Amino acid sequence: MMRTRPLKVALLGCGVVGSEVARIMTTHAADLAARIGAPIELAGVAVRRPGKAREGIPPELVTTDATALVKRGDIDVVVEVIGGIEPARSLITTAFEHGASVVSANKALLAQDGAALHAAAGEHGRDLYYEAAVAGAIPLIRPLRESLAGDKVNRVLGIVNGTTNFILDKMDSTGAGYQEALDEATALGYAEADPTADVEGFDAAAKAAILAGIAFHTRVRLDDVYREGMTEVTAADFASARNMGCTIKLLAICERAADGGSVTARVHPAMIPLTHPLASVRGAYNAVFVESDAAGQLMFYGPGAGGAPTASAVLGDLVAVCRNRLNGATGPGESAYAALTVSPMGDVVTRYHISLDVADKPGVLAQVATVFAEHGVSIDTVRQKGKDGEASLVVVTHRASDASLTGTVEALRKLDTVRGVASIMRVEGE
Amino acid sequence: MMRTRPLKVALLGCGVVGSEVARIMTTHAADLAARIGAPIELAGVAVRRPGKAREGIPPELVTTDATALVKRGDIDVVVEVIGGIEPARSLITTAFEHGASVVSANKALLAQDGAALHAAAGEHGRDLYYEAAVAGAIPLIRPLRESLAGDKVNRVLGIVNGTTNFILDKMDSTGAGYQEALDEATALGYAEADPTADVEGFDAAAKAAILAGIAFHTRVRLDDVYREGMTEVTAADFASARNMGCTIKLLAICERAADGGSVTARVHPAMIPLTHPLASVRGAYNAVFVESDAAGQLMFYGPGAGGAPTASAVLGDLVAVCRNRLNGATGPGESAYAALTVSPMGDVVTRYHISLDVADKPGVLAQVATVFAEHGVSIDTVRQKGKDGEASLVVVTHRASDASLTGTVEALRKLDTVRGVASIMRVEGE
Repeated sequence: MMRTRPLKVALLGCGVVGSEVARIMTTHAADLAARIGAPIELAGVAVRRPGKAREGIPPELVTTDATALVKRGDIDVVVEVIGGIEPARSLITTAFEHGASVVSANKALLAQDGAALHAAAGEHGRDLYYEAAVAGAIPLIRPLRESLAGDKVNRVLGIVNGTTNFILDKMDSTGAGYQEALDEATALGYAEADPTADVEGFDAAAKAAILAGIAFHTRVRLDDVYREGMTEVTAADFASARNMGCTIKLLAICERAADGGSVTARVHPAMIPLTHPLASVRGAYNAVFVESDAAGQLMFYGPGAGGAPTASAVLGDLVAVCRNRLNGATGPGESAYAALTVSPMGDVVTRYHISLDVADKPGVLAQVATVFAEHGVSIDTVRQKGKDGEASLVVVTHRASDASLTGTVEALRKLDTVRGVASIMRVEGE
Repeated sequence: MMRTRPLKVALLGCGVVGSEVARIMTTHAADLAARIGAPIELAGVAVRRPGKAREGIPPELVTTDATALVKRGDIDVVVEVIGGIEPARSLITTAFEHGASVVSANKALLAQDGAALHAAAGEHGRDLYYEAAVAGAIPLIRPLRESLAGDKVNRVLGIVNGTTNFILDKMDSTGAGYQEALDEATALGYAEADPTADVEGFDAAAKAAILAGIAFHTRVRLDDVYREGMTEVTAADFASARNMGCTIKLLAICERAADGGSVTARVHPAMIPLTHPLASVRGAYNAVFVESDAAGQLMFYGPGAGGAPTASAVLGDLVAVCRNRLNGATGPGESAYAALTVSPMGDVVTRYHISLDVADKPGVLAQVATVFAEHGVSIDTVRQKGKDGEASLVVVTHRASDASLTGTVEALRKLDTVRGVASIMRVEGE
């Protein structure tokens, strides 16, 4: 049975995502009403530039006073697609205080202040949903939070930033350097004018914090996530990767330690085997592997950004939140009961690919191998290439802690025969 | 805040899946309680053979009287993992009548009687969840029903039967014939003693009916699904597929017609390009592509069967249903409001790969081409191979309706110069 009084939706932000949300709310109004059990009505749209023409949005709904809009008191759901920390945070908090539930696509805010926002939602008996904050249209938050609620997640490993994947894919397929590939990404609109948030891994780190928090039922703050960008990945690194049957991806990795008592979260470039399904994720697509006790390995793949895909995720949340309101219920809130320790990067255990420039004389390999052994880092393979008194040494290790590897590299730098450490890259996905 | 009175769960069936459900309920009791907000208690286990030892299940909980168990009146959730139509259907209906919600893994029953069961759940204000019925551990029902609730799904295309994928993968990688590959699947436990339900596509058809119903908000009955098994796929078909840069998979395909007013659902073997992500799904794994207006292309991948993966899906549903009970709410029920026409197979539009044995004399190709043209089927490529007065002709068409193709083939068979139609296979995934 259909309720006739519509649920009122306030839209904060009307850029690439917001305008798409408004468009779908209009064009799919009948479908949305049927799926929710009541019609929904766009009650107001808060924007920064009111003069701009916005197709399909009645001008009388447009306001620059977002605060007044969320304070109206008759708003059922606030959709926040402004991004950034402020004013988004204050607006969301105010929305809860005035009885609205919130759907947000704001990864930076959720990663930084998720706990406080969830608390505010809980205090007022309202929902906070944010599927769109991680990996665009790909259902990931809901599967982790609900489908796997009866399972134990051990690892989340994925490509969660389309811009960097586009750049790395370009470097891999054309042999281009980082700057050249970035320029192409910028020209095609895949990278922003200031690409820092993407290429330095800030965006992926925010998503890693959100995913780790949900996967491990533990509060994981942005500061807990180790972060390394991909601006120093070179064509030479890709050549080394290919020699190992690998490619290079910027990965977000959230892991439960083998003993189960602690977790880690990190973002960095890494080599992964070409046979790994993540290796074939092309262009700006995203893909996330989830490994759990009972389900085993699951993969979720799709467009990680863009107006329409992000709007799809926002609208899925909007339908759920509206249904909850009609039911007088709320969906799952923050689940941080496990409160596991978030360990520092030094505790992470993985494999490493290290390129050294060394003197081309007898005994160097023995010296280098001794340093690895002294730090408890076991060597899998070594490849030596000599030329004109200089040589390069490529070492691939077995699994070792990041702290041991760091100690090894510091000691290697002190060897007279080691001229330099050309690159260190982690090897994942095995 | 944790409620202390436990929610009571009755388990119907204690085979491969049921025993795993019981095990996880015990080993992960504290986690499940934290995630639900109340402890859950295994209140009874209905089995056929009570004498069998069941590790971890207190003997006093075991009963052969499933009906009495669901009628007890104090059961909050019934988990049905018996399979088949009866007694599962009666037990589920009785469970609703006595106030329980139901989690089921029963694809055959859901495909055949989903509408009636949903109606019974609705009438009594209870939940009916069945993530485990399709593609084992892979979250698929929930993403379609909830994550994409604000989007318009146009196509669901996937590998939803692990047994047949194992057999086809084996044929592809080793050149084995169907019987040899089936024997290996049976020996390894991937195929049952009577493999009919898998190899004839009945299992996949049931899943297609369920997926189509949810994706298109339309009731799709098992009888509405066109079904063709994979027992007649030959090593020669794989050779033909490779010539086209394709492999062969048994696909479940649910599509909205281009005009949007009707849908189709079908299961059959098909050639797909090696570059398509579904082509690289190996062994008994499942993977499903979902294409929608706003989200674009999404893929979900994982283990499609097995005790633990299926139990993961069952437990995810169990947590959701228990949470709903605590909230006094219910989750999304059947959504069939769109009530689109389910069109017959003749209306399906796709491409075809046809191998003909023909007389090796001038004019045959012209004759054959004329028949295609007369039926409005446009030819993409023709390959002709002659030998000793006999020749084979391989025709790949552009997109045409199944009815047109059937008419074409009937007319081809009547040509004197056509000795036989060696194989007809659809070409998908482009």
